[in-house]
Amino acid sequence: MEKIDRYPFFVEPFHVDFNGRMFMSVLGNHLLNAAGNHSQRRGWGIGALNEHQHTWVLSRLSIELEEMPYQYEHGEIQTWVENVIRLFTNRNFAILRADGTPYGYARSTWAMIDVETRKPCDLLTLYDGDILRYVVPEEECSCPIAGHGKFRFKAPKLVRTIETHYSDVDINGHINSIKYIEHILDLFPIERFREQRLKRFEIAYKTESYLGDCLSFFVEEADGETDVEVRKDSGEVVCQAKVQFV
Amino acid sequence: MEKIDRYPFFVEPFHVDFNGRMFMSVLGNHLLNAAGNHSQRRGWGIGALNEHQHTWVLSRLSIELEEMPYQYEHGEIQTWVENVIRLFTNRNFAILRADGTPYGYARSTWAMIDVETRKPCDLLTLYDGDILRYVVPEEECSCPIAGHGKFRFKAPKLVRTIETHYSDVDINGHINSIKYIEHILDLFPIERFREQRLKRFEIAYKTESYLGDCLSFFVEEADGETDVEVRKDSGEVVCQAKVQFV
Repeated sequence: MEKIDRYPFFVEPFHVDFNGRMFMSVLGNHLLNAAGNHSQRRGWGIGALNEHQHTWVLSRLSIELEEMPYQYEHGEIQTWVENVIRLFTNRNFAILRADGTPYGYARSTWAMIDVETRKPCDLLTLYDGDILRYVVPEEECSCPIAGHGKFRFKAPKLVRTIETHYSDVDINGHINSIKYIEHILDLFPIERFREQRLKRFEIAYKTESYLGDCLSFFVEEADGETDVEVRKDSGEVVCQAKVQFV
Repeated sequence: MEKIDRYPFFVEPFHVDFNGRMFMSVLGNHLLNAAGNHSQRRGWGIGALNEHQHTWVLSRLSIELEEMPYQYEHGEIQTWVENVIRLFTNRNFAILRADGTPYGYARSTWAMIDVETRKPCDLLTLYDGDILRYVVPEEECSCPIAGHGKFRFKAPKLVRTIETHYSDVDINGHINSIKYIEHILDLFPIERFREQRLKRFEIAYKTESYLGDCLSFFVEEADGETDVEVRKDSGEVVCQAKVQFV
C-alpha cells in the first residue's frame, strides 16, 4: 500500500464565496475526508477502530495557501503521515492544482483515544505500531509551511455569542468541526475578504461542545493576525483559531 | 445526447446530522449540482447562457423522501426536464440507492431571465426552442410525489431574526439558496428531528437577499405542516418554505 493518498476535489458553485473562491470550511471538509480515506484504506479508519474501542480525535489543523481554488476548478489533495510522537501523530496535506502545482499545504495533529476512558493511546505500541509503516519522513515529502502557532491571549474581546442549532451538530451530537470554521470566519467584516486574501487559518480543538450550548467568540489582534477563542456557557474553551489575511 | 442525466453522490461524514442522515441542505446542493450538470452538457449551462445574457433562476424546489441517505452510503440522482410552460420549466429528480430503489423524488421549477432586464424569457422560442428536445414526458419517466404546494399565511409568528454573514453569500453576492434551507431547518427544536422524520421539504424563492440583510423567520403550523416565511428588513418576502415531519 502506498504511503501517500490522493483525494480529488472539484470546486462546486455553492461551495464558493462572493469572490468565487472555495470556502475555507469546505476545504477543511475535503482535508478531513482525505485523512479519513487514507486511514480507512490502511485499516486505521473510524469503523475499524470503533471495533477496538478507539477513535481519532483531531487536535490541530493549520492551512496555508498561496491561492484558494476557484469555482469549477479541479484539484487534488495528497495526504501522508509525517511522524508519530507517542500520543500524537502529525498528518500533512498538499493541496494541488490539476497541473500539479500547489495551491498550498496543511498540517494536522491527531490523537487516538479510547472511547470508554476518553484517554489517549500510545500510538507506538497500539496494533504493534502498525501506523509507523506509513510514516513518510520530511526529507521524502515536504510540507513547506510553518508548524502550528502558539496562542497567547492577553485581553481578548467578546465580539459575538451564538446559539447552536440542528445544522451545527454531527453524528456524535458534537458541534461539527467544520462548522466552527464557518462561525469563526463569519466574525470578520466582509471588507476583509474583499480587500485582502485569507492566507492562513489555524484551529486548535480543545473540548467538545454540544447542541444547545451557546458559543461565545473572543477576538484579539496581534502581529497582523487575529486570534479567536471560542468558549461555552461554562467559560470552558472549546477551540482557538488564528487567522491571517494578507 | 440522452435526456436523463445521472449524478452520483456519496454521503460524507461531515454532511450528516446527529441521526447519521444527510442534511436536507446537502441533498439540495446535490440536486442543484445535478441540474447544473444536465443543463451544462446540453449547452444550457450558466456559462453558455451568460454569453447570451441569460441565466437560470430557481423558483421552486420540493423534495419528498421515504428515507434520507445514511452516512457512507452511495447513491445516484437522476434528473430530467418534465415540461416547458413558456416562462417556466419543470425539472424532476429521482434520488436513488445503489440498488436503484428510490430514497425519494424532487420537483423544481426554473425561469430563464435576461441578466440586464431581469425579465423572464420565453423558453419555447429561445434558441429556437432547443430545450424542448430534452423534455421527458410524465408517461416515460414519472415523479410520484405531489406538485408544489400552496402557501396561505394567516397569522404567522415571528420566531427568529438573524444577521447574515460571509458564509451565507454566494458568488453573486446573494444569500446562497442552500443556506436558506439550513437556516429554516435550524428553526425546529431538536426533538422534532429526534422523534420524527423530515419527510417533505419545499421552498419557493421570491426575491434575492444580500449580505448584511437581516432575515426574519415567521412560522405557521397548519394540517401537520409548518409553513415558514423569510422576510428582509424591508418586510419584503425572500422565500417561503413548507416542512413536513412524520
